Amino acid sequence: MEQLDGNEGTSAFHMPEWMQIQFADQKQEFNKRPTKIGRRSLSRSISQSSTDSYSSAASYTDSSDDETSPRDKQQKNSKGSSDFCVKNIKQAEFGRREIEIAEQEMPALMALRKRAQGEKPLAGAKIVGCTHITAQTAVLMETLGALGAQCRWAACNIYSTLNEVAAALAESGFPVFAWKGESEDDFWWCIDRCVNVEGWQPNMILDDGGDLTHWIYKKYPNMFKKIKGIVEESVTGVHRLYQLSKAGKLCVPAMNVNDSVTKQKFDNLYCCRESILDGLKRTTDMMFGGKQVVVCGYGEVGKGCCAALKAMGSIVYVTEIDPICALQACMDGFRLVKLNEVIRQVDIVITCTGNKNVVTREHLDRMKNSCIVCNMGHSNTEIDVASLRTPELTWERVRSQVDHVIWPDGKRIVLLAEGRLLNLSCSTVPTFVLSITATTQALALIELYNAPEGRYKQDVYLLPKKMDEYVASLHLPTFDAHLTELTDEQAKYLGLNKNGPFKPNYYRY
Amino acid sequence: MEQLDGNEGTSAFHMPEWMQIQFADQKQEFNKRPTKIGRRSLSRSISQSSTDSYSSAASYTDSSDDETSPRDKQQKNSKGSSDFCVKNIKQAEFGRREIEIAEQEMPALMALRKRAQGEKPLAGAKIVGCTHITAQTAVLMETLGALGAQCRWAACNIYSTLNEVAAALAESGFPVFAWKGESEDDFWWCIDRCVNVEGWQPNMILDDGGDLTHWIYKKYPNMFKKIKGIVEESVTGVHRLYQLSKAGKLCVPAMNVNDSVTKQKFDNLYCCRESILDGLKRTTDMMFGGKQVVVCGYGEVGKGCCAALKAMGSIVYVTEIDPICALQACMDGFRLVKLNEVIRQVDIVITCTGNKNVVTREHLDRMKNSCIVCNMGHSNTEIDVASLRTPELTWERVRSQVDHVIWPDGKRIVLLAEGRLLNLSCSTVPTFVLSITATTQALALIELYNAPEGRYKQDVYLLPKKMDEYVASLHLPTFDAHLTELTDEQAKYLGLNKNGPFKPNYYRY
Amino acid sequence: MEQLDGNEGTSAFHMPEWMQIQFADQKQEFNKRPTKIGRRSLSRSISQSSTDSYSSAASYTDSSDDETSPRDKQQKNSKGSSDFCVKNIKQAEFGRREIEIAEQEMPALMALRKRAQGEKPLAGAKIVGCTHITAQTAVLMETLGALGAQCRWAACNIYSTLNEVAAALAESGFPVFAWKGESEDDFWWCIDRCVNVEGWQPNMILDDGGDLTHWIYKKYPNMFKKIKGIVEESVTGVHRLYQLSKAGKLCVPAMNVNDSVTKQKFDNLYCCRESILDGLKRTTDMMFGGKQVVVCGYGEVGKGCCAALKAMGSIVYVTEIDPICALQACMDGFRLVKLNEVIRQVDIVITCTGNKNVVTREHLDRMKNSCIVCNMGHSNTEIDVASLRTPELTWERVRSQVDHVIWPDGKRIVLLAEGRLLNLSCSTVPTFVLSITATTQALALIELYNAPEGRYKQDVYLLPKKMDEYVASLHLPTFDAHLTELTDEQAKYLGLNKNGPFKPNYYRY
Amino acid sequence: MEQLDGNEGTSAFHMPEWMQIQFADQKQEFNKRPTKIGRRSLSRSISQSSTDSYSSAASYTDSSDDETSPRDKQQKNSKGSSDFCVKNIKQAEFGRREIEIAEQEMPALMALRKRAQGEKPLAGAKIVGCTHITAQTAVLMETLGALGAQCRWAACNIYSTLNEVAAALAESGFPVFAWKGESEDDFWWCIDRCVNVEGWQPNMILDDGGDLTHWIYKKYPNMFKKIKGIVEESVTGVHRLYQLSKAGKLCVPAMNVNDSVTKQKFDNLYCCRESILDGLKRTTDMMFGGKQVVVCGYGEVGKGCCAALKAMGSIVYVTEIDPICALQACMDGFRLVKLNEVIRQVDIVITCTGNKNVVTREHLDRMKNSCIVCNMGHSNTEIDVASLRTPELTWERVRSQVDHVIWPDGKRIVLLAEGRLLNLSCSTVPTFVLSITATTQALALIELYNAPEGRYKQDVYLLPKKMDEYVASLHLPTFDAHLTELTDEQAKYLGLNKNGPFKPNYYRY
Repeated sequence: MEQLDGNEGTSAFHMPEWMQIQFADQKQEFNKRPTKIGRRSLSRSISQSSTDSYSSAASYTDSSDDETSPRDKQQKNSKGSSDFCVKNIKQAEFGRREIEIAEQEMPALMALRKRAQGEKPLAGAKIVGCTHITAQTAVLMETLGALGAQCRWAACNIYSTLNEVAAALAESGFPVFAWKGESEDDFWWCIDRCVNVEGWQPNMILDDGGDLTHWIYKKYPNMFKKIKGIVEESVTGVHRLYQLSKAGKLCVPAMNVNDSVTKQKFDNLYCCRESILDGLKRTTDMMFGGKQVVVCGYGEVGKGCCAALKAMGSIVYVTEIDPICALQACMDGFRLVKLNEVIRQVDIVITCTGNKNVVTREHLDRMKNSCIVCNMGHSNTEIDVASLRTPELTWERVRSQVDHVIWPDGKRIVLLAEGRLLNLSCSTVPTFVLSITATTQALALIELYNAPEGRYKQDVYLLPKKMDEYVASLHLPTFDAHLTELTDEQAKYLGLNKNGPFKPNYYRY
Repeated sequence: MEQLDGNEGTSAFHMPEWMQIQFADQKQEFNKRPTKIGRRSLSRSISQSSTDSYSSAASYTDSSDDETSPRDKQQKNSKGSSDFCVKNIKQAEFGRREIEIAEQEMPALMALRKRAQGEKPLAGAKIVGCTHITAQTAVLMETLGALGAQCRWAACNIYSTLNEVAAALAESGFPVFAWKGESEDDFWWCIDRCVNVEGWQPNMILDDGGDLTHWIYKKYPNMFKKIKGIVEESVTGVHRLYQLSKAGKLCVPAMNVNDSVTKQKFDNLYCCRESILDGLKRTTDMMFGGKQVVVCGYGEVGKGCCAALKAMGSIVYVTEIDPICALQACMDGFRLVKLNEVIRQVDIVITCTGNKNVVTREHLDRMKNSCIVCNMGHSNTEIDVASLRTPELTWERVRSQVDHVIWPDGKRIVLLAEGRLLNLSCSTVPTFVLSITATTQALALIELYNAPEGRYKQDVYLLPKKMDEYVASLHLPTFDAHLTELTDEQAKYLGLNKNGPFKPNYYRY
Repeated sequence: MEQLDGNEGTSAFHMPEWMQIQFADQKQEFNKRPTKIGRRSLSRSISQSSTDSYSSAASYTDSSDDETSPRDKQQKNSKGSSDFCVKNIKQAEFGRREIEIAEQEMPALMALRKRAQGEKPLAGAKIVGCTHITAQTAVLMETLGALGAQCRWAACNIYSTLNEVAAALAESGFPVFAWKGESEDDFWWCIDRCVNVEGWQPNMILDDGGDLTHWIYKKYPNMFKKIKGIVEESVTGVHRLYQLSKAGKLCVPAMNVNDSVTKQKFDNLYCCRESILDGLKRTTDMMFGGKQVVVCGYGEVGKGCCAALKAMGSIVYVTEIDPICALQACMDGFRLVKLNEVIRQVDIVITCTGNKNVVTREHLDRMKNSCIVCNMGHSNTEIDVASLRTPELTWERVRSQVDHVIWPDGKRIVLLAEGRLLNLSCSTVPTFVLSITATTQALALIELYNAPEGRYKQDVYLLPKKMDEYVASLHLPTFDAHLTELTDEQAKYLGLNKNGPFKPNYYRY
Repeated sequence: MEQLDGNEGTSAFHMPEWMQIQFADQKQEFNKRPTKIGRRSLSRSISQSSTDSYSSAASYTDSSDDETSPRDKQQKNSKGSSDFCVKNIKQAEFGRREIEIAEQEMPALMALRKRAQGEKPLAGAKIVGCTHITAQTAVLMETLGALGAQCRWAACNIYSTLNEVAAALAESGFPVFAWKGESEDDFWWCIDRCVNVEGWQPNMILDDGGDLTHWIYKKYPNMFKKIKGIVEESVTGVHRLYQLSKAGKLCVPAMNVNDSVTKQKFDNLYCCRESILDGLKRTTDMMFGGKQVVVCGYGEVGKGCCAALKAMGSIVYVTEIDPICALQACMDGFRLVKLNEVIRQVDIVITCTGNKNVVTREHLDRMKNSCIVCNMGHSNTEIDVASLRTPELTWERVRSQVDHVIWPDGKRIVLLAEGRLLNLSCSTVPTFVLSITATTQALALIELYNAPEGRYKQDVYLLPKKMDEYVASLHLPTFDAHLTELTDEQAKYLGLNKNGPFKPNYYRY
């Protein structure tokens, strides 16, 4: 995939079945009234964002519950504005404190505020956004404001809004339409309130999952005439955009920020290296030393899991379908096996493939007593959990996110998070990772908004490498890391600009 | 860079200065009569190949020296053929033994012989080759023969030919024109003898450095009418091809095998992870534990060096110009510094940048006594060795490849390999790495030779990902590694062919 | 320290101040009514045991609270016995379930039951015990029963008893006297009820902290005539025994199980390698990659912390007072510094010294904003937390076990567990570690009870190495680990018995 | 084993068979005229010392060969003394240069010279020494001289003397009696010349292997009246001393420096962690990544080998007889197996047991083609090499220290160093390790020479822990490592002297 040209991706594009299914599922889900948290869990960091929020602020969210729908309430902020709809504007102060803590941990956005403040690169931008609404998102929104943009915002998930943060944003003047526990009707109503405003028309879209984009396509297609571009951050949303592009229906440039180098490495390799340990420990209190583990899949997520467990003294086996990744596993010191070869002996099975039915009922039948089974990969398809819902097996919930599935002979399998993503369900995402995502989004908005006419066409683009490098550079001060600068002579020798980009597009890092 | 389309690379191409210089240098060098081994050391694995050969067979090469030029000798092999020119055909038996040992360590090529033998995918191919002539090359050539090809071969380096191996090839009927210690005139004469044959015209080129290709362009441009493609394996040769392509002068398809995933990972990350330790140990007998080391550059080579030294108990600092690589260094646990910050305290300085003057005289002046300085990166430009050739400094050769440079106050710097590549000069390359390169070359030849009309145009291509995966898969049995196969259901779910390719082109591994 | 001779330890014994203080503190504490959990936190695994229990069973403990003192209740188990005193005998079923889960994770004790069942090596033993009362202790007690012993039991800590487990033990016939939330008076009353029984006199003591031993010394010194030995597992209790021995007042053999090799390695190195990550993650959700950490002390605990953090990508500095441990830190790849040198730059400070005031107010004043400070070492003395209780500093409790201490300029220090042990307060102890301790206790009881007259004198002994090896061997099946046996020829060659012991006493492992 | 009391070791002492055999062997060897280098290879560092010397200076040793026995030559140094016997006094200058290089790498001894120079703690000491004679030994001898001692010296090995270094010592006035290639008669003659001098009688012995001590016992028993003590550094020599002690025949105090903490860790764990890689690489040029390796024995040497290979990407299996070490292997992430379970699949077999016939002919028969077999443990007994000397197997020497043993079906086993110690035969010992040994020897001499009457009796002692710590502290500056000092308050709290010793004797490090 090239970075300034979105065509090449589509030509080679195989429409994977799980994406088709995914879309079908979503519809069904709305019809059936969603009951599980996280309607859409494809995008790792998005859902992680919401998980994170749950854990850190869940306590006081619940205490202020009442039964009246926010749509039926009359609320004003202290400046007299009522252009918002949140659970309870009085919770603003709590939310502000959460935002201030998040600011401390997102130095890159704060630096961006400072650096870009004079020039206001988003002056004139009217951004409509649809994302999880958390303290970290609030820092992003207020950064966009500081750079000159006007924003209106809805939630991309009916459960993930932090009510206090939404209140704090509303209090400081952001038209926010979101609360925890929206109905499907509420969900679309909120989005509509962001878009359908008299005297205000968006010229930029920041989307997470594609629902906002979808709504405008469906209801207000003419709006696209004024829209300079879409920034999309989820796997699902990006996939929808590629489909639109392929079908020739994409009418503005779109930026795929999901696949930027920095975001990918942090969402997958670095984050999972830590969250696999955290997720296992919090749920099972197990000891890693000496345990036999099989990790299915040696992509970035699998690499992170394997490295962490090996370092903690586990004996790790790997399964792979791709011979190149398989060879990497070998060179990194892991026995490459088929799952059947080790399934009887391992203490832990971890899936990281993005595939479905990687762990089948047959495998589960052959596991030894007390074997732990969990999923770090994709959605909830990797382990065939449905196959365990049979009469001869007993399920016993031993603690939150931990089920014992008991065979007639007494054998117990320890299933974590019912096969959903362990790192989202049983661990948290460090704010640092969220900071990288948010910074990438901000830069993508700046790039699209300021690009000279014609640089971007009606296609899907990767973030320019130079911007990717800029995101990274904004996060280096956290580590007190000192970058070396090329001399003029060296830059000439290498044929590079001193300010980057430093690598060809195909560089693998 | 896409894999079936070579255009995009050239459009974004910055012609780096070192390549320009490189070409100028080469000319000069021939005029001045080369005195150093390895006229061209850009391509890691090529030169490594020759180094390897030196060490393993150097002993009996020298014993059979005589002063007559091979061009003046009349030699026949046991079947009566004299269509070759080697040092001494009588050395064939020694060479055959070396080849047989190499065969044992190159199971992928041997497997290829078996798998492709029935169909003879190279039947009709007339390959002219110009590479280092070593036992490993011989296994490649004989594999090409077994697959149906006719071959004629010259050396790409005037010093790297293993005379015994050349003799063994000649004895078994390969027209080989090469010996150790050719003059420049000999060099081109040998190439010409491969190409300029009555009744035989090549239809495939396997080149390493571009000299063979250059010669045909210059002397026999009409030959290209029958040539189906060029396979090139060196950085330099690939660069020359991109230049031709950019200038619109490339008249056949060319395959850049240098940048295939498998080859890159093995040449750089995996190989250097081991050779940095080996090179330092063989030259200095130092202990790694507790040593402070600065590694300049955190690309694949730098990553390998850092990982190895950290594992051995060294304290490693990293310098970088690229913020993305810099952030990777941070996440991998290395302090990112400017060289100046640590130069006074480190015990070892290792360059892996591909840049020039990374270590300057000023740095060298500030190093502490006994500091070891070496280069794992590129050519001999990274350390400004020339700056040490001043009257106030004394050079003392303490053993092969090790110089003490002594300051007036008695301070000694330990300079390895005079700033040339440590891994080529002071370590060896495992045959396994050479096997990956040779297999990649063979598959590229098969691909180009059998491609349907029109698949490849007059451009430079990367090896198709599926072939890259095939190279990897041929090397898995070495590790008794068992690949998992997708079920039909899974393949459909992922939108993949069960036999690959398994990843999009931009996948970073 | 020799293993069959306790004299040498005492002769070289320096009475460290912290032990003196410790004893004084304990008295005060009782007078003042203890308010913090864990009256005695010196012994790592003991307190860990209780912590573990809290987390796993805390839920249903609270639900059955009532205000009547157990001493005032009339309770009978289903067999009609009332020789016990627990919170609520009706909770027995819940407790039994916890015990059954623990049994699954303590295969060594279960194996011991099987192996020793025929011979009943504790037939005739009358054991009085005083330990934390948890599911794991219950498995130990029921094992002792299965081996032939009669047991009476009290709790060694007024807060750590799991009421349900105590009920289950009482229900199955064990005279248990313990509940969560005893008063000091209750505490000694319970102990007395175990010891002072008509028609039953103990002949073995299993103590944890020395209170039971102390009580018998004070109230029933004549009982020691029938007592064959004491098994003590805490640092404090062991210290008390050495003092008695030194003073010539120890009148029975005592076994120090705290310092057995296996227990030490698991309590310190292996357990802390995992709990440092767990404790930090659960309290702060921080990311380890790239963080600068200073670990004070490079003993077993420090080694574990350093190894784990290095593996997760942190940059780790070490401080040490002992040059031998310091040299080990160097060889393991850590910069050895004084705390002052790095205190301004580190993100995390971890103490593992066993010393006091390692982190002083001066250090705290110089730390950077958001620096995390925690203690993995000893008690709560290592960080001078008292120095932070000054008017100009604001304390803010941000979540359980996490305080922000805020300087007048806004700088925040993140203090974990108020300087108490992070691994006890904010992590859990794997049952596997508790299994090793319990097995060691059981074997020590068997050894002392069955030792021939005269093998043990009135002194403090380490567990015989052969028993230490036996504990290890009982835990190997967990890892499907297969031990090699010496041939007769090899045993003769090495001068060893085929069944061990395999190493000289001074072997360092 | 206590450190100030040698009795306890002997009481528990099992006389292992290999030591008995060893002694018998030695006699036989002398009768048969030794043909292999290193008559006595038990003591790791000693033999390493000699190996090291061979490699670094072997070149000019050979160039000065002549046939006259040194005993028949008349030589004088430049000051006119002829109280020495070396190969060629004229080589002194070359030797001096080697000594000067070694001085740079032995800063601890140089620091000792400075610190102790004023007080001359060895004033009056008359030391007779019998060790390998290398540049490092020369630095030790000249340090002893600088501290006030007079020395006379012989070689402990007939092959290991560096003639140039011996010449340099003789030139600067040391009575040295040693050359490379002594006969057995020469060997004892040299020792006698050191001891049997008119007007000079030794009062200290520094021995390595026990031959010097043995000679004095046999020939000049009265000398012991004036001798204050023996310092012995080899396993063999230490064993002889314990036997003497046990038999009541030891008539002076002896110091066992072999078992000091610092020396043991460096000789075994730290040194082998590096030399296993170096030894394998130099002999086979193999790649470690992905290789399956079985390491027999998980003591310090095995731990070092396993850690290094795991870090390089090998898959490592461990065999053990001791359940405690076995459990350590499990917790460190290695599968614990019996050799038979993996022998068919591994690429490398490494023995580190100290045992005999660990790898039998039966194992060798079952290994796969190209399996590498080597010994890092003890002597040459671990691999049953003798069993390979049968008619049906063909041996092929493929390079120095590397044999292919070929089975009738063509299978080849790669046997390194004929089963002798790989690290001694095919690697070198860093001077840093030798520095630790030499410093330990110097301090032991100072301690014994200056000890007040009665502190040491006629027994074998370990180096006092404080001295062990001092050796470590002298080596910290090499790593720019900064030790923390206890405050008075802290020392009191811990019950420690601020200057150490810091640990109880049984501390395991």
